Amino acid sequence: MGFVDKLNRAWKANRSLVCVGLDPDSSRFPRVIEQTDEPIFEFNKAIIDATHDLVCAYKPQIAYYAAEAAEGQLESTIAYIKGTYPDVPIILDAKRGDIGSTAQMYATEAFERYAADAVTVNPYLGFDSLEPFLAYKDRGVIALCRTSNPGAADLQDMKVDGDTPLYEKVAKLAAGKWNPHGNLLLVVGATWPEQLAKVRSIVGDMPLLVPGVGAQGGDVASLVKAGQTTAGTGLIINSSRAILYASSSDDFAAAARRETERLRDEINRHRSASGN
Amino acid sequence: MGFVDKLNRAWKANRSLVCVGLDPDSSRFPRVIEQTDEPIFEFNKAIIDATHDLVCAYKPQIAYYAAEAAEGQLESTIAYIKGTYPDVPIILDAKRGDIGSTAQMYATEAFERYAADAVTVNPYLGFDSLEPFLAYKDRGVIALCRTSNPGAADLQDMKVDGDTPLYEKVAKLAAGKWNPHGNLLLVVGATWPEQLAKVRSIVGDMPLLVPGVGAQGGDVASLVKAGQTTAGTGLIINSSRAILYASSSDDFAAAARRETERLRDEINRHRSASGN
Repeated sequence: MGFVDKLNRAWKANRSLVCVGLDPDSSRFPRVIEQTDEPIFEFNKAIIDATHDLVCAYKPQIAYYAAEAAEGQLESTIAYIKGTYPDVPIILDAKRGDIGSTAQMYATEAFERYAADAVTVNPYLGFDSLEPFLAYKDRGVIALCRTSNPGAADLQDMKVDGDTPLYEKVAKLAAGKWNPHGNLLLVVGATWPEQLAKVRSIVGDMPLLVPGVGAQGGDVASLVKAGQTTAGTGLIINSSRAILYASSSDDFAAAARRETERLRDEINRHRSASGN
Repeated sequence: MGFVDKLNRAWKANRSLVCVGLDPDSSRFPRVIEQTDEPIFEFNKAIIDATHDLVCAYKPQIAYYAAEAAEGQLESTIAYIKGTYPDVPIILDAKRGDIGSTAQMYATEAFERYAADAVTVNPYLGFDSLEPFLAYKDRGVIALCRTSNPGAADLQDMKVDGDTPLYEKVAKLAAGKWNPHGNLLLVVGATWPEQLAKVRSIVGDMPLLVPGVGAQGGDVASLVKAGQTTAGTGLIINSSRAILYASSSDDFAAAARRETERLRDEINRHRSASGN
């Protein structure tokens, strides 16, 4: 089963467009976690156990693991999800981008070493930098289009060939010749509902990964209105910090569950067909 | 001492603009290396011992280590260079790019965990994605401008604001407001001498990392003519595969030395002031 099919099933099974970002910052761990041998894994496991029936995906951000030399705990986290909740897709957020021979190594990292269902990539190097990832036809490849950060406009809004912002050009390529196997998706930040609507108009029903609700301040009503498909789906709406650190005490997992449920329900209130 | 100063000293001390890319592909290791406990580290160590007096930098490509879960051997490689040949700068080729809070984690990875002197980054997310790296003022931050791969043109040559290719816009930003501390550098592929000359005309004496000679086919005479500064320097010319795999037998280190020396001398013949 391909990534998009797996995602479609998770959307329906859990009636949720919420993706929980697993960005474990050990300086923010509660005491009960700090005292364990593998705090990052134990923190993630508690979050996953508390939220697995409320999400459409998990998205570990590899930078948080790399900064702490904790690749092993990332492997354990993914193996735990796959073993315990195999229907929940896993998106490795790595934003890789390199020349073909090196991109092949990064594809090996994401899809073989970590066995992720999808990975995020950066389009700046062009199509041949995406091909080694796209060749894994049962996996998803999610390219940056319009990112959630304040500086997104610096390059992504530059006007190309007259009056088209660069990010729209990326969306057009992703909706066409860059997507021979139907497994290319895009990232569009929740902080830019106008641009999200534009991308939706270009890419049809392509699922979009939408970071930026929660700590980054994206508005749920606006983003769902702008980004949903006619079926009321098509979005992977990521929240990381607002869920992971909903409480800084030992009740963090229960607090994370409440915040995930709250976000799911808020999103569903704005979907045109939330029973989907 | 900042990265550019360290680089300037290495250029002069070894009379070399050659950077050896440490991209260890274990499927290409000679037998004598295959049999060791830490084959990636042992391979790198042999290459480094054979070439340290002929280079201006080493550039490990992190993807090769990540694909094999060999981050520990990358740490050992960098520690070996720092301990044994401390005057040779180390560029971690990682092409990272993410929102500010995540970029901070990647900066921690590159500059604290690996203690690299410089790291490559991707500019697609804009200035705020570079700031956490640039804040390490004694380190180098090397942003992609015009990459060496065939697909480089897909986005990087798109015409912005009328008739300026995107990569020139990146060069102008890097030469100006994106570079508050003077530690931002650029990547321009050896395979594009015309674009390299254009970037040189924009950035003054900024050092440029130039991959793409050797296996990728960049022509040395053209790139040196196009990219050198008036002092006959300003280039970090990387070769990986042509040096690492100059021989597939147990004499690989001696063959790597010969190829490094040959490339250094070929480059120096075309420099306007090779005694520099």
